[in-house]
Amino acid sequence: MSGDITIKYAQDLMRRYYYERDSKRGLHATFTWFVEEVGELAESLLKDDKESIAEEIADVLAWLLSLANIVGIDVTEAFRKKYMNPEPPL
Amino acid sequence: MSGDITIKYAQDLMRRYYYERDSKRGLHATFTWFVEEVGELAESLLKDDKESIAEEIADVLAWLLSLANIVGIDVTEAFRKKYMNPEPPL
Repeated sequence: MSGDITIKYAQDLMRRYYYERDSKRGLHATFTWFVEEVGELAESLLKDDKESIAEEIADVLAWLLSLANIVGIDVTEAFRKKYMNPEPPL
Repeated sequence: MSGDITIKYAQDLMRRYYYERDSKRGLHATFTWFVEEVGELAESLLKDDKESIAEEIADVLAWLLSLANIVGIDVTEAFRKKYMNPEPPL
């Protein structure tokens, strides 16, 4: 481990690199890309290819953060509210 | 903002609360639950209900981290490798 990454840092990184393109593309088209990545994750799970599973999980996370940027959601706050307030729902 | 959450903290939290149940349920069943949450996110986007979008984004993230726990993927490392090495692919 060479150090942690905060959810906020990752969301900001996606905003910096992709927000302009994502918002131009639009919410529903960006959601469609997100779902395409979910499909790639499914494929990698079926193939049981760990390296590719790791890459697809990163991609799904990246597109989820991009979506959140388009709709103006702070993912850190959303996660905290649902899962750390005071603890995860069981 | 009352402080940042690292991806690692969130993944560990999901492991602590849900790993036993998730791993007993199995990978494909957990993936199915994850996709169910993606569907709920779609529904909230179509309804344009910001509070519900925030909650569903948190849920999709939570299930993605749970999936990663089952397959033994460190999401921080996966994200770093794909998007911070040295910078996001365009």
